[in-house]
Amino acid sequence: MSKSAFISMAVIRRLPRYYRYIHRLWLDGVTRISSRELADRMELTASQVRQDFNCFGEFGQQGCGYDVALLNTEIAKILGLNEGYRVIMMGAGRLGSSIIENFNFESRGFHLAAVFDSDPNKIGTEIDGLKINDPADLEGLCGGRECPEIGVLCVPREVARECALALKKAGVKAIWNFTSENLYDLGLVVENVHISDSILTLGYRLNELERELYG
Amino acid sequence: MSKSAFISMAVIRRLPRYYRYIHRLWLDGVTRISSRELADRMELTASQVRQDFNCFGEFGQQGCGYDVALLNTEIAKILGLNEGYRVIMMGAGRLGSSIIENFNFESRGFHLAAVFDSDPNKIGTEIDGLKINDPADLEGLCGGRECPEIGVLCVPREVARECALALKKAGVKAIWNFTSENLYDLGLVVENVHISDSILTLGYRLNELERELYG
Repeated sequence: MSKSAFISMAVIRRLPRYYRYIHRLWLDGVTRISSRELADRMELTASQVRQDFNCFGEFGQQGCGYDVALLNTEIAKILGLNEGYRVIMMGAGRLGSSIIENFNFESRGFHLAAVFDSDPNKIGTEIDGLKINDPADLEGLCGGRECPEIGVLCVPREVARECALALKKAGVKAIWNFTSENLYDLGLVVENVHISDSILTLGYRLNELERELYG
Repeated sequence: MSKSAFISMAVIRRLPRYYRYIHRLWLDGVTRISSRELADRMELTASQVRQDFNCFGEFGQQGCGYDVALLNTEIAKILGLNEGYRVIMMGAGRLGSSIIENFNFESRGFHLAAVFDSDPNKIGTEIDGLKINDPADLEGLCGGRECPEIGVLCVPREVARECALALKKAGVKAIWNFTSENLYDLGLVVENVHISDSILTLGYRLNELERELYG
């Protein structure tokens, strides 16, 4: 599919957003969309959209717009949504539980395979049909060739590094990091969740609005 | 400060990321950084960085790099971090509590002013030193001229719209939306948090890595 071996991270980071919009259009029964319309909805420029899609191949014919169903399938493929990656959740505290209960891993092509928490009151109990395990049993339960590919870190920052290292030792390849610990040096694929970015954008937009209204 | 009245949302959405990197450099005592170095750290191109900063004014001299302390102050100003916006939290369930306890509003220039939850077992109790109030008292407690500017929605999707409308009625101008409800039609500034975007990026990068390793 991909035309070039190197695609910049900036483009890759826009793909999930594209997927959200395209998937929604597809669910709504829209069959074609122009780069202009898509750009307007996503607050991008039409030439940006065309450039981005060009990195991955041909999704449309000039003047006819893009085929929404094709875009939907192809972006899902590029994102690896059909890989069925398995996920280990580390930490079933407030944040971890809230993700387990509210985030639909399956609908995004992921499978939540196991949950670990060091709280003795939680070990052995269930959350959303999954048993909460003792982190001491991580390697025994998940280690080796069959180890899930992704670990989700919802632990306190102080134990994040130790926890990531234990995941790596068990065979995990990638970390979805909800802590503020910097884990780039561990030789794992790491994605940090920075929810603060969106409240800063909100603050900016509110500030702009007030300047417009009150000068 | 801003050179042009219109700055695209794509640039604005990059600002919090710039701020995170620049603020970190500033804390680390770095005094100057080139667009190239900054671009490398942020997985952007140097010309993108120069273009983005150009939208807001002059932060550096050609060939000398950017003044980190100046960038830090100016981006904070552009983002409105000194506005001291006040925040109402709607929902003190797992997600809401986890945000109240883990997200440092103050360090980002925001002030958490009040918390509401409809659970009778929670009303009247405290979280992080703040009393949890009955949503029926929203307008009485927060309404009018002194209404906080921002409402955070950590409620079930089914009540998100009703809750956003109550916030609007009380005088809230902006919504930080953790639900999957689409609230763009309410005439409020709305920022959605899409944590799924980052696990999709993670899936993509993992997929790429495996293709490199195993062909």
